[in-house]
Amino acid sequence: MRIILDGMGGDNAPGAVVEGAVLASEVIEHEIVIIGQEELINHELKRHKYNHKKITVADAREVITNEEAPVRAVRSKKDSSIVKGINMVKSGEGDIFISAGSTGALLSGGLFILGRIQGIDRPALACIYPIIGGEASLLVDAGANAECKPNNLLEFGIMGNIYMEKVIGRKTPRVGLVNIGTEAAKGNTLTKAAYELLEQSNMNFIGNVEAREVPKSACDVIVCDGFTGNVVLKLTEGLAWNILQVIKKKFTDGVKAKLGAALLIDKLGELKKEFDYSEYGGAPILGVKGPIVKMHGSSSANAVKNTILKGIPFVEENVVETIQNSVLEIEEITLSE
Amino acid sequence: MRIILDGMGGDNAPGAVVEGAVLASEVIEHEIVIIGQEELINHELKRHKYNHKKITVADAREVITNEEAPVRAVRSKKDSSIVKGINMVKSGEGDIFISAGSTGALLSGGLFILGRIQGIDRPALACIYPIIGGEASLLVDAGANAECKPNNLLEFGIMGNIYMEKVIGRKTPRVGLVNIGTEAAKGNTLTKAAYELLEQSNMNFIGNVEAREVPKSACDVIVCDGFTGNVVLKLTEGLAWNILQVIKKKFTDGVKAKLGAALLIDKLGELKKEFDYSEYGGAPILGVKGPIVKMHGSSSANAVKNTILKGIPFVEENVVETIQNSVLEIEEITLSE
Repeated sequence: MRIILDGMGGDNAPGAVVEGAVLASEVIEHEIVIIGQEELINHELKRHKYNHKKITVADAREVITNEEAPVRAVRSKKDSSIVKGINMVKSGEGDIFISAGSTGALLSGGLFILGRIQGIDRPALACIYPIIGGEASLLVDAGANAECKPNNLLEFGIMGNIYMEKVIGRKTPRVGLVNIGTEAAKGNTLTKAAYELLEQSNMNFIGNVEAREVPKSACDVIVCDGFTGNVVLKLTEGLAWNILQVIKKKFTDGVKAKLGAALLIDKLGELKKEFDYSEYGGAPILGVKGPIVKMHGSSSANAVKNTILKGIPFVEENVVETIQNSVLEIEEITLSE
Repeated sequence: MRIILDGMGGDNAPGAVVEGAVLASEVIEHEIVIIGQEELINHELKRHKYNHKKITVADAREVITNEEAPVRAVRSKKDSSIVKGINMVKSGEGDIFISAGSTGALLSGGLFILGRIQGIDRPALACIYPIIGGEASLLVDAGANAECKPNNLLEFGIMGNIYMEKVIGRKTPRVGLVNIGTEAAKGNTLTKAAYELLEQSNMNFIGNVEAREVPKSACDVIVCDGFTGNVVLKLTEGLAWNILQVIKKKFTDGVKAKLGAALLIDKLGELKKEFDYSEYGGAPILGVKGPIVKMHGSSSANAVKNTILKGIPFVEENVVETIQNSVLEIEEITLSE
């Protein structure tokens, strides 16, 4: 297997990306190709000891930033690490593309270069949803599709279910639909219709899940439209951050509090770690004809390493092919409506 | 002013409701009428010392539960505390109706008995959104309208703005639209169109607010459709609860941790209090021809008292009339489109 890693994407590139590749390379046999401006990447590589056969560099002169309009950037910057990297997956030179770069550019690149899997109307971004005090869930769609039709939500469920089972290794994942009530008849036009479709699938569909239950691990695969998914993910991030800030402020306010906090330092560290979901790897783009994984923009070397490790089952377990084979089930359900 | 209080609604009724009325009555001059099965309410009242001229009881034999279909319940249970209470506001026997009962029944009662304010397409439920370490925001719509049109979001903003200013007392509230990006062109069809309408209003519209910023007090009035609003509120509740549970578990795990937690007991109490927003009063139904306030089902006596106190400016500041007068602005904006 050859893993193509974007050396230019993310806030800590290329340093953290290169270091992550070196760390991953110590535990896996596969080849890692770091793509980007080669002098910069080689400069970082020189800081490390590594197997020169297992880590190589491919040159790409252009960089796509988060500020650029994704579609235009992908169309015009043919020599960017993202466009060249995804092209390597298309041509078979690479088996998976991993990047901490622009989500929009990765989605556009997936759509324009690899193309949609036939029968999948809307590819989606699936994100790990951290469960504090438990195993993470997978949220689909995390923001690729702000506007959805009921069949899209069925696709998200089926694709998320496959990824959760094959890559994260959760057996018979519980698939739930984010809704404003638990009864089948609750919700808006979209969720009511999506419920009927999801119910007909062969998955372990557990029905509607209220947002209150999402952080309590109500389901393994959280299905929703991209607008709602984005709200769920970002609100979780913002609120958790805010609570930790208030705890920090309160626990350093006064001598007694500081003493208490000192005794609890290990526990507070554990608490902070509960919010760290980098061990689960990045966010896969599901529904395009090849594996692409988006990492958090601020990914550390360790997060990069974990994403590379999780990329292996994404390829070896034939997730893309399995999604392709699930299209028939999707068609049967949607056509029967 | 005569405040009509539902003696039968909520998990702690009539005990907490009666006690809340007694507590409120000690600090206000207005009359409180507790409506419900009079023998039950009188039984509770006997436990307290109170001014018999300021607290009276009105009999209503039926009770609407949370499990009943709201529209049918309101139509059939004419002798329920909710239907009779709202009718008292309509007839002028009361100035405001406050209840911890079924949200759906209160919304239906507001719509069918009082009626929509002419020019307001969709009345909304406005909820206090707790800001940990800061002043609470107001979220409109919190779930009354799962499906919305752009003009509804304009209405929510304008009504929320009036309530925030007149009842909560926040000067020139910052009104923000929940969206998946900050630029005007971001979002789905609904938010893009709503942005254009909100921008034309005379309010202090600060534009799009990402869900990540909502818990950090990005705006005073949080505008969104009822589906999104319900997700935001319930996710916040569920996640905060979950984090507190994990903290509790970690801080009682081992002797050292317990000692640390003992030293931090005051701070932990303060932290828990940050999540308590009962001091802001209940959730007003905005857009109907009279003041109705929904309290949390599990409201304590103190929460009941605070809701009564906040009900006074809802009446005295003529919130309903002010909304009525704002209809012209709404029409000017929506007709110009």
